[in-house]
Amino acid sequence: MDKPEIIMAPGPTPVPPQVLLAQGGPLVYHRGPGYGRLLREVSESLQEIMHTRSDVLVLTASGTGGLESAVANLCSPGDRVVVPVAGYFGERFAKIATAYGLDVRRVDYEWGRAVRPEDVAAALAEAPTKAVFMQQSETSTGVIHDVEAVGSVVREAGALFAVDVVSSLGAVPYDGDAWGVDVAIGGSQKAFSATPGVAFVSVSSAAWEAAASSTSPRFYFDWRLYKDAFDRKNPENPFTPAISLMQGLREALALYFEEGAEAVLTRHRLLSEGTKAGARAMGLELFGEHPERAWAVTAVRAPEGIDGDEIVAKVRRDHHVILAPGQGPLKGKIFRIGHLGYYDRLDIVRCMAALESTLVELGHPVEPGAGVVAAQAVFTGR
Amino acid sequence: MDKPEIIMAPGPTPVPPQVLLAQGGPLVYHRGPGYGRLLREVSESLQEIMHTRSDVLVLTASGTGGLESAVANLCSPGDRVVVPVAGYFGERFAKIATAYGLDVRRVDYEWGRAVRPEDVAAALAEAPTKAVFMQQSETSTGVIHDVEAVGSVVREAGALFAVDVVSSLGAVPYDGDAWGVDVAIGGSQKAFSATPGVAFVSVSSAAWEAAASSTSPRFYFDWRLYKDAFDRKNPENPFTPAISLMQGLREALALYFEEGAEAVLTRHRLLSEGTKAGARAMGLELFGEHPERAWAVTAVRAPEGIDGDEIVAKVRRDHHVILAPGQGPLKGKIFRIGHLGYYDRLDIVRCMAALESTLVELGHPVEPGAGVVAAQAVFTGR
Repeated sequence: MDKPEIIMAPGPTPVPPQVLLAQGGPLVYHRGPGYGRLLREVSESLQEIMHTRSDVLVLTASGTGGLESAVANLCSPGDRVVVPVAGYFGERFAKIATAYGLDVRRVDYEWGRAVRPEDVAAALAEAPTKAVFMQQSETSTGVIHDVEAVGSVVREAGALFAVDVVSSLGAVPYDGDAWGVDVAIGGSQKAFSATPGVAFVSVSSAAWEAAASSTSPRFYFDWRLYKDAFDRKNPENPFTPAISLMQGLREALALYFEEGAEAVLTRHRLLSEGTKAGARAMGLELFGEHPERAWAVTAVRAPEGIDGDEIVAKVRRDHHVILAPGQGPLKGKIFRIGHLGYYDRLDIVRCMAALESTLVELGHPVEPGAGVVAAQAVFTGR
Repeated sequence: MDKPEIIMAPGPTPVPPQVLLAQGGPLVYHRGPGYGRLLREVSESLQEIMHTRSDVLVLTASGTGGLESAVANLCSPGDRVVVPVAGYFGERFAKIATAYGLDVRRVDYEWGRAVRPEDVAAALAEAPTKAVFMQQSETSTGVIHDVEAVGSVVREAGALFAVDVVSSLGAVPYDGDAWGVDVAIGGSQKAFSATPGVAFVSVSSAAWEAAASSTSPRFYFDWRLYKDAFDRKNPENPFTPAISLMQGLREALALYFEEGAEAVLTRHRLLSEGTKAGARAMGLELFGEHPERAWAVTAVRAPEGIDGDEIVAKVRRDHHVILAPGQGPLKGKIFRIGHLGYYDRLDIVRCMAALESTLVELGHPVEPGAGVVAAQAVFTGR
C-alpha cells in the first residue's frame, strides 16, 4: 500500500483538499467561454502575484519546459548568454542553453553560495550579451539569489533578464517589473500548492521583440502561438491544455488571495525561522549563504559521520515524512526541508519531532524535544 | 454558471468518475517506489495496447509536445522528411518539421482524402529520406489513414516511420510492431478518457539510433533523459511529472483492460455505425474517404444553405452538447461528432436527438425521430 506520506521536500508540496476537488471535478471544455474565463483569471492573478504588466503565458509542462521556452524564444544559435551556476538549477539553465547552441558564459560558484551582482557585471562587460539566465531560489541549496541587485546590472548592460522563480514565487518577495525582469518562469506545484504539470511564463515587451527575431527551432514552446490563442474572443491555449490542473490552479490562486499576499509571505518567513531555529537547537549547522533569506527551503548539513541520504531515508521509512536529499556534489552532505506551500506551524513541529527521533537513533546527540521547543519558541514569539 | 456540458467533440472526452477521483486523490511523491510502480505500470500497459516492444516514454505535455519530440529526436536540420498532409494535423506535423529546419517534402491532398501508400512511395523514391510523419486518425476530417500499408512502403525505403495516434489509439485497430511503426505518439485525453496533459511516445531501436545522432536542439523533449530516468531502480520522470494526471491515467487504463481491448474496439465501431446511420437518416451526407473506418470521429457535411458552425453553436446553446466545427478550409462546411472515449449507445441516441431538433429548427427537413430510430436499429441489430 502507498501509505499517505507527508511531503516536506521542495515540491511538489501538499495540496489543499479544495484544489484536489477542483481538479477532480467535471472538465470545462477548452474551447468556449468557460475555459476562456478560467485562463484569463489565472493569467491575471499571476500578473498580480508577479507584480508585472507583462503577458503571462500558461504552458502544459513541468517547470523545465518553461525554462526551455525562455532560452528558445529569447536566443538564436551563437548568441552569448551569461548563466550563473551555483547549484543544480543553475546547471540546468546552462545545459539547456548549451543544447540550443548558445555561447554560454558560465559564472561558476561553489554550490551553496549566492550569486554576486559584481560577478555578473564583470561577465557582461566582456562582450555583448543577449540574456542572463538565473534562479531566484536555487532549490538544490535553498539559497535565494538577489534578483533585484542582479537585475540592475543586467539592465545597465542592456541584456535581457530571465529568472526561474519556480520554487520562490509566493514564498519570498518578488517584484517583477520594478526589478527589471523580462521573463520569469513559475510552476503550479510549489508555493501555490497546486499539483505539478503547469508552467507559466511572464514575457515583457523587450522579450517579445527578442522572440520575434529568434531563429531557434520551436513549436510547442513558441510563445507567439500562446499569445495568438489568448487574444481570441475567448482566450484559449494553442494546444489542448491540462484542463483539470488549470481548474486546480485557479482554486489554489483563490486560496492564495483569500489568505493575502503579505500573509502568505509572513507565513513562509515564520515557518522558515522556526525550522532553522529547530535545526540549530538539534546541534545542526545550516547550509548555504544568507540562510535568513531562505524562506522556501532550509538546507542543513548532515552531522559529522552521518550520511544525509540515510537521514532522509530513515525519516521517510519511520515517520512517512519526505525530506529531500543533497544533489550533485552535495549528495550525502546535506538534506533539505521544504516549507513552501500548504504548511502551517504544526507541520514544522511534526517535522522537527521526526528529525529529532531519527538523529538520536542514528547516534547524533540531541536533547529530546530540543528542536520542537526551539521551533515553538519562534512560533509563539517567546 | 458553467453548466455541465456534454462533450462530443474528438477530445478531450468525458472522464469516468473513477478517473476523476484518482486524480483528485492524494499525490504519490514522484521520487520513490510508489510513483515508480505507477510509471512502470502505465508504460507497460501502453506497450500492450500499442502492440509493441518499443520503450514507451511518458511526457508532461499536450499531444503536440509528443509530436515535436518525434521531429526533434529523429531528425537533424536539413534532413529530408516526407509529410502527407490531408488535414489540420498533417499540416501541424509539416509546421513542426519546418520549424526544425528540415527539408519537408509534403504530399498534399484535398482535406478529407485518405493518404495513398503509392504517393508516399513515389515521394520516398525521389531522394534519400530520414523519416515519414503521418497521422492514423486525421482528427480534422475523421479519416483513418492506412498505417499498415504506408508502413510497408516506408520500411521498403529504409526510412523511419512516426505516427500520430493521439485520436486513434484505443478507438481503431493498431498494431505497432507488425506495421513497422518506429514512433507512435498518443495522448491521455482521447479513447482512454483520462484528462489532457500527458503524451506518450513509443520509441523503437531504430528510433533510438536516430536519436543518438540527431543534432536538433532539445532538452525537455530529449528522449534520452526519459530513458535514463526510467531505468533507475525506481522508474522516474526526468522532470517533476503531472502526478495527478498520471494517477488518473492509470485508473483509465485499468478500466480499459477491465472492459477488454477487443470489447473497446467493438464498442467504438458500433457507436460509429450508429452515428453514421443516424446522420444518413437525417438526410445528411458523411464527409471524408472511407467513412466506414472512421470509428473515432464522424465528419458530416452541413446541409446546403446551413452553416456548419451555426449547427455546432446551436446544439451547444440549446442542448449543452459540444460538437466540433470544421477547421481550415472546412470551416462552416462540415461538423464533427466525436465518439471516442467514455461513451455508450445512449450517448449517441441523445446526440442524435439534439442534432435532429437543431436541424429542424434551422430549416433542414428531418422526420422527427429519424436519426434516433436509425441509430437504435444499428444498436439493436435490427
